Amino acid sequence: MRSLKSLGEREVIRIIQEHLEVMPRLPLGFGDDVSAIRFAKDVLIVLKTDMLVDKTDVPPGMTLWQAARKAVVMNISDLAAKGAKPMALLVALGIPRKFTEKDIRQIAKGLNSGAREYDTFILGGDTNEASDFIISCAVLGICHPKMLMKRKGAKPGDILAVTGNFGKTAAGLKILLENIHAPQELRETLLESVLMPKARLNEGLALASSQAVTASIDSSDGLAWSLHELSKASHVGFLVEKLPLAPEALKFAETHGLNPAELCLYGGEEYELVLTIKPQFWDKALSAIKNAGGKIIPIGKAIKENSVKLKTKEGLIPIEFKGWEHFKTTLKETKE
Amino acid sequence: MRSLKSLGEREVIRIIQEHLEVMPRLPLGFGDDVSAIRFAKDVLIVLKTDMLVDKTDVPPGMTLWQAARKAVVMNISDLAAKGAKPMALLVALGIPRKFTEKDIRQIAKGLNSGAREYDTFILGGDTNEASDFIISCAVLGICHPKMLMKRKGAKPGDILAVTGNFGKTAAGLKILLENIHAPQELRETLLESVLMPKARLNEGLALASSQAVTASIDSSDGLAWSLHELSKASHVGFLVEKLPLAPEALKFAETHGLNPAELCLYGGEEYELVLTIKPQFWDKALSAIKNAGGKIIPIGKAIKENSVKLKTKEGLIPIEFKGWEHFKTTLKETKE
Repeated sequence: MRSLKSLGEREVIRIIQEHLEVMPRLPLGFGDDVSAIRFAKDVLIVLKTDMLVDKTDVPPGMTLWQAARKAVVMNISDLAAKGAKPMALLVALGIPRKFTEKDIRQIAKGLNSGAREYDTFILGGDTNEASDFIISCAVLGICHPKMLMKRKGAKPGDILAVTGNFGKTAAGLKILLENIHAPQELRETLLESVLMPKARLNEGLALASSQAVTASIDSSDGLAWSLHELSKASHVGFLVEKLPLAPEALKFAETHGLNPAELCLYGGEEYELVLTIKPQFWDKALSAIKNAGGKIIPIGKAIKENSVKLKTKEGLIPIEFKGWEHFKTTLKETKE
Repeated sequence: MRSLKSLGEREVIRIIQEHLEVMPRLPLGFGDDVSAIRFAKDVLIVLKTDMLVDKTDVPPGMTLWQAARKAVVMNISDLAAKGAKPMALLVALGIPRKFTEKDIRQIAKGLNSGAREYDTFILGGDTNEASDFIISCAVLGICHPKMLMKRKGAKPGDILAVTGNFGKTAAGLKILLENIHAPQELRETLLESVLMPKARLNEGLALASSQAVTASIDSSDGLAWSLHELSKASHVGFLVEKLPLAPEALKFAETHGLNPAELCLYGGEEYELVLTIKPQFWDKALSAIKNAGGKIIPIGKAIKENSVKLKTKEGLIPIEFKGWEHFKTTLKETKE
């Protein structure tokens, strides 16, 4: 019998799915970022649950307030990637007995801040005693069926784009987990990206309205992982022509002799959107995202050949299908 | 600073609520069994999350399949108490590293069985590594605004009723936790009530349609607790004229010199509905529940005086506001 460690999270999920009967006529497949059901002719109800567990999702240096806010952001990010507007959140808490009243207040404030930041509310929840500190959020959102951005839909020739640069959280996690030094200002920027992640909700809603997007995913498991997931769902490959490397991550990598591409591709815990856009609709997408106060960075294109590659001066090199995976890796292990 | 143990679950929830901004125009208050938002003129969306944690919710002798099924039933029961029809479930899992592939299959099968038993589906979820085995379910349901059965609404003179007898799970838990002996047939019935709880969904939906119910709650924290919660929400008291004691619980109590009223009132982990019904609509409620294949047992009435009492041969005695409470009590402590 295989152990969880040898299985890894994706295989665990596959095994679970094998035993679940599938609701008929689902607008979205089981493997997408969210679940959806058709509620009326022009309304999809979108649902998502994502659990934060301290030992895998809360790095040292993150306060309880930040952890609680992050638990909300993680869930909102998945709705953002689909173009769904969050309506309400539920929160089930697992709280270790050693926590104090002050801790509880910090958690509650963080949850509320996360919800209000994205114009939604915590509607209810449940509290329990547990060995780990756990926040299991569930979010309900709505979306017009025509606006829903699936993982599936990218076609060869589509422009591959992201809503922001990558690499800062991987660098920030190195600072937190390995006590690596960085100059004050740089350190603050890198830590901010880990401790105060943002969901690209305005960007996701604006892009969904533009109807220029053919496929979309959030990048919480890392850019490389997201590209492979989009590739798998859309049956296309990707040629990344220019890595969206954050200048701060480059600076950090140079100082410490690290590979900046590694920070950019395999970091995880970043909540940008990774999308494909029809070339003829690029301007439409650009104008929609500018109106929303966001940005969109073209980084390559979808290709027919089913592989994910990076263009470098030395030629094409494969981007590996790797990133954060529960059971297989621990916070300390992967983020190193 | 107060510890969680001295606070107890209810105070923890109160503290959390203090810091949460409240969504305007909610059809249901924060303290009810579920949360609800108005979705259209004649549709409420009802939401509930309830987390199962092995060390507090899974007694020895309960299989993983049963625990997973129970995690679903716990959530469905709250919708049943409100008269809301479940549409879809999300499941976030916390899984200890020592679990095997076989364990995962058992959990998945249990989740699916629970969902299908109530004509709904698991739509998605999340898996994580955790120290405890945790199942955090969230359920989405719908309800007509006129059908929603709140905790608030009981009036003096209303008939107090339950959908089944009480005491079997308290007795069953004693067998499991203290290895108390019972004859084979009795043992099986008592254990069944603990290991295979049923949500009174058909009953709840039928009673909601009858519009005879003035207030409703599920009894997962025990009959006494539910009566006090209804009392608090509706600003009435209750006079219990006849305890709905299961004959099997009485037999078990007699054999072991236990107080049967204790088993009936303070057990918990029972998923009956506790309701109040307008006397003039009693026949309507009765016929609705018979059509649904269920039963309804009158046990007393709502009274003006704000207290919860039991009529005995020796006169009126107070029913205490006690039951299962996280942080304050452990499975072993309370169920003894």
